[in-house]
Amino acid sequence: MLSRAEQQEAQRYAALQLAAAGIELRDDERSSIEVADFGLGRLNEVGLQVLVYVNTDRYCAKELVLSPHQLCPEHRHPPFDENPGKEETFRVRRGVVRLWVGDDEVVLQPGDQRTIPPDTLHRFQAGPDWAVVTEFSSTSRDDLDVFTDPQIDRTPRIAG
Amino acid sequence: MLSRAEQQEAQRYAALQLAAAGIELRDDERSSIEVADFGLGRLNEVGLQVLVYVNTDRYCAKELVLSPHQLCPEHRHPPFDENPGKEETFRVRRGVVRLWVGDDEVVLQPGDQRTIPPDTLHRFQAGPDWAVVTEFSSTSRDDLDVFTDPQIDRTPRIAG
Repeated sequence: MLSRAEQQEAQRYAALQLAAAGIELRDDERSSIEVADFGLGRLNEVGLQVLVYVNTDRYCAKELVLSPHQLCPEHRHPPFDENPGKEETFRVRRGVVRLWVGDDEVVLQPGDQRTIPPDTLHRFQAGPDWAVVTEFSSTSRDDLDVFTDPQIDRTPRIAG
Repeated sequence: MLSRAEQQEAQRYAALQLAAAGIELRDDERSSIEVADFGLGRLNEVGLQVLVYVNTDRYCAKELVLSPHQLCPEHRHPPFDENPGKEETFRVRRGVVRLWVGDDEVVLQPGDQRTIPPDTLHRFQAGPDWAVVTEFSSTSRDDLDVFTDPQIDRTPRIAG
């Protein structure tokens, strides 16, 4: 579980990286950045910072911020209701990102993008620098994500 | 109808504005920027530059670039097939944008965003500086757009 201080520090760093990428945030957005440690308590190794711009019942858009070498662990977006599962496009804005989709591995530079089909295992990791990735997708339901590591808890829990 | 030279000049300016907004483009994207004069032949007054990142059968994302005071004229995105029409979220990145949705008028600064329901008349115009607007949306079918001005032809036509 993250402490409030750890969460706030990660929010500040993520907001700085978004600013460095030329992305203007409103004040209310800075404090809304989600800091996910996936319940593992090793945020610098396994984690993700997320700013959600919009998430309707049709589409979603987010900025994903990764600290150096930070890994978003393997997961998939399963079908729900009438929805075949989330389809998503990652576009790298800053830094270098290694993306694994199934057995494929690719290294993405700024300006590169990839689309990940629904219900398909994938993970991604920043290179030696901070990375900023814009995610365009169908509707997002993070609470339904299925992670390969059974120890993972996607629900953000902040102490205190 | 735009000349090839006018199209290429507008592409170059749009790419410069995207770069100034911190948005990294690949070389193949720079020449794919759509320059729309809506068939009116007054690009500096009524027009739009569009970079499409992705457009699947579920979602779409674009950058919209407007020169100073350039207007994207009033239109709506009607239903098609099983689709209720395009829903879209505009987020201003650079410059100031005036947006009219139905009878409402709002001035958006960088970091501000608005979501426009399907099949709803809207138009938008840059302020005194160049503007960059990211559009997150459901699937885009520009060929189906319905413009209020019957003289408008949305299909890009480039001479020569």
